[in-house]
Amino acid sequence: MSFELQARDPKFEERVRASFAQQGLMSTFAAELDRVEPGLVEIVVPFADGLTQQDGFVHAGVVIAAMDSACGYAALTLMEPDFRVLTVELKVNLLSVASGERLLARGQVMRPGRTLTVCRGDAYAGTGGEERHVATILTTMIGLGEV
Amino acid sequence: MSFELQARDPKFEERVRASFAQQGLMSTFAAELDRVEPGLVEIVVPFADGLTQQDGFVHAGVVIAAMDSACGYAALTLMEPDFRVLTVELKVNLLSVASGERLLARGQVMRPGRTLTVCRGDAYAGTGGEERHVATILTTMIGLGEV
Amino acid sequence: MSFELQARDPKFEERVRASFAQQGLMSTFAAELDRVEPGLVEIVVPFADGLTQQDGFVHAGVVIAAMDSACGYAALTLMEPDFRVLTVELKVNLLSVASGERLLARGQVMRPGRTLTVCRGDAYAGTGGEERHVATILTTMIGLGEV
Amino acid sequence: MSFELQARDPKFEERVRASFAQQGLMSTFAAELDRVEPGLVEIVVPFADGLTQQDGFVHAGVVIAAMDSACGYAALTLMEPDFRVLTVELKVNLLSVASGERLLARGQVMRPGRTLTVCRGDAYAGTGGEERHVATILTTMIGLGEV
Repeated sequence: MSFELQARDPKFEERVRASFAQQGLMSTFAAELDRVEPGLVEIVVPFADGLTQQDGFVHAGVVIAAMDSACGYAALTLMEPDFRVLTVELKVNLLSVASGERLLARGQVMRPGRTLTVCRGDAYAGTGGEERHVATILTTMIGLGEV
Repeated sequence: MSFELQARDPKFEERVRASFAQQGLMSTFAAELDRVEPGLVEIVVPFADGLTQQDGFVHAGVVIAAMDSACGYAALTLMEPDFRVLTVELKVNLLSVASGERLLARGQVMRPGRTLTVCRGDAYAGTGGEERHVATILTTMIGLGEV
Repeated sequence: MSFELQARDPKFEERVRASFAQQGLMSTFAAELDRVEPGLVEIVVPFADGLTQQDGFVHAGVVIAAMDSACGYAALTLMEPDFRVLTVELKVNLLSVASGERLLARGQVMRPGRTLTVCRGDAYAGTGGEERHVATILTTMIGLGEV
Repeated sequence: MSFELQARDPKFEERVRASFAQQGLMSTFAAELDRVEPGLVEIVVPFADGLTQQDGFVHAGVVIAAMDSACGYAALTLMEPDFRVLTVELKVNLLSVASGERLLARGQVMRPGRTLTVCRGDAYAGTGGEERHVATILTTMIGLGEV
């Protein structure tokens, strides 16, 4: 990742946190924003009974939603004010079932662009310091100017 | 899709419905199983405030979770009793923002296999008869025998 | 696919065929264009020793290159004159090893758009009428106006 | 990548190089193996007129074929003798058009497994020391024992 990832909007963090607070799904998940840096965002999801799949592990949909949001906000940190971000497409490999106390989803900008931004990300699940790499994502985001 | 998709377990529907009832996330989404046929499963999610992204549309994570579950259960309909299914990986293109009253996610087996099953699916969102194609998925599932 | 796929440029076929003739790789593969219709393009690749992987089957790279070109040209059929198409990203599932006399790669527009066009496609390999479904693709193309 | 990537077969490099020499397509591309290490393989493709797309850049199919082979061989370095590797699926984002003198495709094992191995990779194109990151891949490989 040889690009210098520089925020064009000094208020990028404020903007990301305000947008995140609007996401009903993240609130349903009791998810919280952790790091918000130019080109990098982390989201933490505490595990709960309402987030499981059939075997009692955390549903892939939760892991993917958190990685998708982390990547989208990572892209947003680099955009002009008044831009918003939508996910064009994403690809996820699930590496392990997710269990433990919480999930950490990290999204990073791999290639910023005027229209399209390519991001990658990873999710780690576990308890305390013992975490496993449970998923990886590669995704394309589109930035839309104010209409 | 030139494969004959035949269920090996006459109780496939019962098995799918019992497994679905165990998914905490689907319950959190108030999702319901609709069609359960050999190689095809549909899931309906009524839209609610707790499922939104930042602009008030339904979060991509909800759409993806429903398509992922529909594809996983479509794969499960074709498996021996005592098998379970995990998602290996998935790829989703989001075609439109999702809004309206409900989402219909359909998963279909494209290529069944002893170990790996490839599925495709689509999601439609809308109100009443007016629905839009909001997403498409291509995914690999793995069937695991009883250990 | 509920979209009406209409060509805006009556000379779309001429344009696709002229562009295809410029592709050095398709010439190296001795590939030929078959159907060129609004939103649908087919490419045929005769199998040859120079296209194999280590076990003597046709290399996945050949199958993917043909599907990628078929999808790109399917997108191009729907664009204004002077537009060109680049692949943003693609996802392929390989369903069977490819062998026989030839490959047929079909690309279809799933969702046309001003900037991004989503395509899907399939590849079939075999001899005479006996063909197997060897791969499926889901891809995003970008249309670029004359600069 | 916290996994220790250890070759189980001390002759892994010999095995990879022998298999690579069997690939007709790599020979057609005049491709060469560069690094072959446990969990990491690099392939170099010199650019030539027979590898282009319609605008004179290197065809995405060449870039993808090289990354696919690099990832497959990266997976093979970690497998028992007599195993072979097939690509289950792959996802590629194209970041820049590829031009210059040569392509370097690197494949790395992200998660080794008994049956499935997840790899990632990148491709760089350019002339001399000046190279651009032109593509990234995320892919699933399957290891098949001797039958």
